[in-house]
Amino acid sequence: MDNLKPTILVTNDDGIFAPGIRKLMSIARQFGNVVVVAPDTAMSGMSHAITVKDPLRLRKIDEAEGFVEYSCNGTPVDSVKLGEKVVLKGKPDLVVSGINHGSNASVNVVYSGTMAAAIEACIDRIPSIGFSLLDYSHHADFSHVDEFVKSIIGDVLNNGLPSGVCLNVNIPAVHASEIKGIKVCKQAPGRWVEAFDERIDPYHRDYYWLTGVFEDGKADEDSDLWALANNFVSVVPIQFDLTAHQFLGELKNRGIESEKS
Amino acid sequence: MDNLKPTILVTNDDGIFAPGIRKLMSIARQFGNVVVVAPDTAMSGMSHAITVKDPLRLRKIDEAEGFVEYSCNGTPVDSVKLGEKVVLKGKPDLVVSGINHGSNASVNVVYSGTMAAAIEACIDRIPSIGFSLLDYSHHADFSHVDEFVKSIIGDVLNNGLPSGVCLNVNIPAVHASEIKGIKVCKQAPGRWVEAFDERIDPYHRDYYWLTGVFEDGKADEDSDLWALANNFVSVVPIQFDLTAHQFLGELKNRGIESEKS
Repeated sequence: MDNLKPTILVTNDDGIFAPGIRKLMSIARQFGNVVVVAPDTAMSGMSHAITVKDPLRLRKIDEAEGFVEYSCNGTPVDSVKLGEKVVLKGKPDLVVSGINHGSNASVNVVYSGTMAAAIEACIDRIPSIGFSLLDYSHHADFSHVDEFVKSIIGDVLNNGLPSGVCLNVNIPAVHASEIKGIKVCKQAPGRWVEAFDERIDPYHRDYYWLTGVFEDGKADEDSDLWALANNFVSVVPIQFDLTAHQFLGELKNRGIESEKS
Repeated sequence: MDNLKPTILVTNDDGIFAPGIRKLMSIARQFGNVVVVAPDTAMSGMSHAITVKDPLRLRKIDEAEGFVEYSCNGTPVDSVKLGEKVVLKGKPDLVVSGINHGSNASVNVVYSGTMAAAIEACIDRIPSIGFSLLDYSHHADFSHVDEFVKSIIGDVLNNGLPSGVCLNVNIPAVHASEIKGIKVCKQAPGRWVEAFDERIDPYHRDYYWLTGVFEDGKADEDSDLWALANNFVSVVPIQFDLTAHQFLGELKNRGIESEKS
């Protein structure tokens, strides 16, 4: 490891061999020493899950000057914890997660393992960024992302992030020439409307596949969904303080509080 | 089902047979028709995970007038989705989750399956509350919780909650006579500092158990940790808009944005 260079921990939720993390690893290596710890299988939709019922294992995949790569049998959040506490035995200068195959804009941030990994680093006061490309395919084209990923990593390495804030970056799946730039946004409203695909197994028992369609809310011009629909890369600063501060006063005033004398 | 009474969906993350959900079911039945859908095994630390790689199954456990109880093989968030879309085929008037065995105050809200279930209902615009008792034990004493759980459920059924807000309620594990009342609070800072318990299996391979100790941040008087330490029931309004609104302006001003001409 070159001690003059920053140490960057790379993870994802699509699994260690997904093209998205391969791209992110190669970009991260242009900035510093890179440690990769990522799930050995796809972990989409795992959100901030941690593994407490099973033991965790690490497997070394590759190693080179200033670079080491491990897979683990845990979640994206476990990967960040293992990377910091077992592999590095200290804090990296930056955690980057992704590049996710599929959007983590709007409410997707809540379900996302990619963003949970970034949020976990943020809880541990390490600057962190989650990157996603709006293409679910394993064969997604990542050729146009370098410029934007590099510019945002460079900004965070140079300027840092406030304690308790990380970045959620989404990149449109369009040709490089069509991308209009980078926009700082807020999380758009939106939700998944589920439809369970109901089936009967060979033993005559019901089972259900979770499916759903994404329903946009009203996407204001300063929201991530608007930016992405207009071919901008969206950057949303994300926090893990979930308090609905704007409602604290009203909730107090309506008499839900009590105090015994 | 009595159509004049509210319909309440009950779930948890400790599993369908945990004493905490048994207590919450019995309280919910005093308010209306109750549908229970909860994981068939303990799902602590599952956060907002959803099941997309495996089929989901429901099993009817019990049924009575105005009451039906199912277990499922999914997560707490899956349970809410199944309850709404497969069992009820419509929205309940209220979702209650818990009573969790253990605290979901401070940053625990991010890892919690109990709170993820409440947040999932909130995303779907259903009023919802997650309840937790500060005692991890299966033999935890829930005898003092009725008064507070009833008062908060009553408040939410009567007054509703704003769209996009649910409640995180934590109850001290002390004798009823020691509880001082109910306080509306914000989420205190704090984090888990992990220590992996490193072991070697009979085949000479390393493995790791995730353990950790909770490290309090500075708990202000208006925070949940302060309230709980002072024997108040804490009520934190929670939102799933993760945007760090207070940092949007600074992030724009430092030049991370770009626009191609």
